[in-house]
Amino acid sequence: MNTMPPVADVDMRRATLLQILHWLAIGRVQPQSLSDVYQGAMERLNPRLNAYVDFSVSLIQEQALAADRRRRDGVIGRLDGMPLAIKDNFDVAGVPTRAGMRRRTIVPEQDAHVVARLRASGAVLLGKTNMDEGALGLATNNPFHGATHNPHRLGYTAGGSSGGAAAAVAAGLAVAAIGSDTLGSVRVPASYCGVYALKPTHGEISARGLVPAARRLDAVGLLARGVDDLTVLLQTLAGYDADDARSRRRRVAFSPPDWEPGNLRAGFLPDLAAVGVEKDVIDVFEDALSKLKGELGERRTVDFSDWDFARTRRAGLLLMEAEMLNTFAAELADEAYPVSPGFRHMVDFASRKSAADYAAADLVLDAATLKMRRLFAQVDVLVLPTTPQGAFPLDGPVPSSQADLCGFASLAGCPAVSIPMGTLPNGMPIGLQLVGARGSDLRLLELAGVCASSLDAEPAYPVEPV
Amino acid sequence: MNTMPPVADVDMRRATLLQILHWLAIGRVQPQSLSDVYQGAMERLNPRLNAYVDFSVSLIQEQALAADRRRRDGVIGRLDGMPLAIKDNFDVAGVPTRAGMRRRTIVPEQDAHVVARLRASGAVLLGKTNMDEGALGLATNNPFHGATHNPHRLGYTAGGSSGGAAAAVAAGLAVAAIGSDTLGSVRVPASYCGVYALKPTHGEISARGLVPAARRLDAVGLLARGVDDLTVLLQTLAGYDADDARSRRRRVAFSPPDWEPGNLRAGFLPDLAAVGVEKDVIDVFEDALSKLKGELGERRTVDFSDWDFARTRRAGLLLMEAEMLNTFAAELADEAYPVSPGFRHMVDFASRKSAADYAAADLVLDAATLKMRRLFAQVDVLVLPTTPQGAFPLDGPVPSSQADLCGFASLAGCPAVSIPMGTLPNGMPIGLQLVGARGSDLRLLELAGVCASSLDAEPAYPVEPV
Repeated sequence: MNTMPPVADVDMRRATLLQILHWLAIGRVQPQSLSDVYQGAMERLNPRLNAYVDFSVSLIQEQALAADRRRRDGVIGRLDGMPLAIKDNFDVAGVPTRAGMRRRTIVPEQDAHVVARLRASGAVLLGKTNMDEGALGLATNNPFHGATHNPHRLGYTAGGSSGGAAAAVAAGLAVAAIGSDTLGSVRVPASYCGVYALKPTHGEISARGLVPAARRLDAVGLLARGVDDLTVLLQTLAGYDADDARSRRRRVAFSPPDWEPGNLRAGFLPDLAAVGVEKDVIDVFEDALSKLKGELGERRTVDFSDWDFARTRRAGLLLMEAEMLNTFAAELADEAYPVSPGFRHMVDFASRKSAADYAAADLVLDAATLKMRRLFAQVDVLVLPTTPQGAFPLDGPVPSSQADLCGFASLAGCPAVSIPMGTLPNGMPIGLQLVGARGSDLRLLELAGVCASSLDAEPAYPVEPV
Repeated sequence: MNTMPPVADVDMRRATLLQILHWLAIGRVQPQSLSDVYQGAMERLNPRLNAYVDFSVSLIQEQALAADRRRRDGVIGRLDGMPLAIKDNFDVAGVPTRAGMRRRTIVPEQDAHVVARLRASGAVLLGKTNMDEGALGLATNNPFHGATHNPHRLGYTAGGSSGGAAAAVAAGLAVAAIGSDTLGSVRVPASYCGVYALKPTHGEISARGLVPAARRLDAVGLLARGVDDLTVLLQTLAGYDADDARSRRRRVAFSPPDWEPGNLRAGFLPDLAAVGVEKDVIDVFEDALSKLKGELGERRTVDFSDWDFARTRRAGLLLMEAEMLNTFAAELADEAYPVSPGFRHMVDFASRKSAADYAAADLVLDAATLKMRRLFAQVDVLVLPTTPQGAFPLDGPVPSSQADLCGFASLAGCPAVSIPMGTLPNGMPIGLQLVGARGSDLRLLELAGVCASSLDAEPAYPVEPV
């Protein structure tokens, strides 16, 4: 028997995935007790946070029991016993994939690619997390399934559209979570909830079994409590999938070349205020940069005067809205259970758009791809805040610029990492974003890890209980 | 001085690019006399064939003179002095790119990527070849610039949309030509004119400076009088282009793995007649296959019952027509010089289509990509006729199925080679098509070369003079 003192429940819920892997490996924590702690927290706190929209105590216990058994037998997977959450737009066999819609009743027969990979790794899937209706939004204020509250302050948004996933990770209701990111949907909630997120290179993780929003942009995103956790998850989930037309052949597992932080060429926007970043965010950003002088090397200003924020935002949204007219055709035609007026309004915009308009928007993405490719010939990494502002009250106005700083990576298919960079004057967290060239995921995570260590920010845990 | 007898003019016009490279290397042929032969033939025959829509004797002579000079100085490029033709939808600096439109007056300042590569290799650009209006067609019966005639029979189509390029190569008015292939536009005319064609893997050759038809499908295509000529041209032109958003990173120059023709798994459609292939074409195809028993290995029937020809054709065309509403917006709005009623009718179809329709068509291409990917897990190569019929009279009806057998490779971005396989009862040539998995261009060309040797067909040269 193990003679070390037991790990306190609260520590299990604050630890990183790597710490928990270690505890499991040395037998200081057992899968079942770990799951019990998470399940207990879910039952106690989810009524207030609304991070999960669907979970089953018996299914959790069944998985944890099996993990305990595998560990006794000594045949375990990479993430065996790890309690993880998944956004409700990924297929889990036998469970309806609601995708935030009012009444989507499609019950998939097959697991999504990432769900199958997680099961094969021995992870315990805790439940499915809340999201914006159809993933078309950035606030997780769902008209049918309710708002997810920010664990740092009830009544504030957790961000979206993967708000439930980010809130679950921040509040200790999941060790890590799988979300999706079409135009910023894991990075925005990570910034608002004070957690870590990766939007990988487009196609790096197969999106098979993810309800399509805009296939050219859709990426499986990762949310966790540490950078290294993102790396482990990426290496578990990435790789070519012959059954996904958009899957990339290049895998992330090859080592990137050696690099020296001091020699790094870091690119910065010339004027954050001019592109709508709030003054408080700029102050936190500058404060963080002052701690990262040795990590980010030479600071170069890059020219984005040819980047039209309104135009690129519109192009990305049109691709989403147009495809959603097809993806959610049944729900849009369901008169008994209509979609919300807000959702209807957004897709109605696309329904008035022509095939030529779509082709023109798609061409804007080609231009964005070239713009970012040229940028990454000049700099190694683009450094900027993740969001122009922090979390806002759920009952207040929704800023339209939320995902503007996420668009660079989305439209060009580049990887982006968001790490917490500090706290705004109102006590809410805010994220720092690192964007790299396509395929540079591992290198970007390595840099993000170095930066996170140097920022040495005391993790901004939400007050317990929320 | 060289003591070998001079090469006869007609032989210079029938030789392959490789043969001419050899003659040039040993000094048996000089660039200028070579160009003179081609230029003379162009002046004599083009009024009847209408293969070229634009060429300048002084520009040809200037290039040939420079090639002679380089050869005397001993500093020559890979294709130095080679007389080549280029389709009129590629930018040549200083010359209007008409793209088959009635009155397109855009004069590009920069050469297209392939034109720049050809110039750097020392090639002599003879002129720009005829095509369908906007490349939207398969007959090169242009309402403004006239029909290109098939060199094997005047009054018959050369195929399209690269019909001028194919006719020039067949009639000895160019050693080889650069065309474009969105849904079959180099393979169809190659089949009808009895020449060799390659539609490479999508993105293998940069399409920068090609007037866009449908960016997801557009490929630079090659036309020549031998398979090895295609290989030399591919290796000269292929490679990553950072300024083309659709350019592939993988280059073709790596050697494919060893392969043994006898072990090849060759896939065949179960019933060509059922998919609209004419009986005469099937007879020539079966006769060719009987000569290729040792080359094509095991013959496997592949299932295409889930491939909806009408639906995939419509999806590909919608992507073209929708993008053309943007590409040719100025020409479509020009009331003084209206587009043809046929062109207007086709793009009008797209102008009634919505952004969601475009997204749905784009999804059909994803499905085609998966279909072909699964196919190439079962077979190494797909073997089929290039076209369901041979060339037809220019004044007769245009069959709608012309490009149906080209769609497999186009929609999935796969490489395809067309080689002459024999002669139809009416004396007209017809092509055999080999389709491979994405990135298998070199291997496919190697196989096509072996097949061409075994078919040992006397090249079906047009009667001189046409």
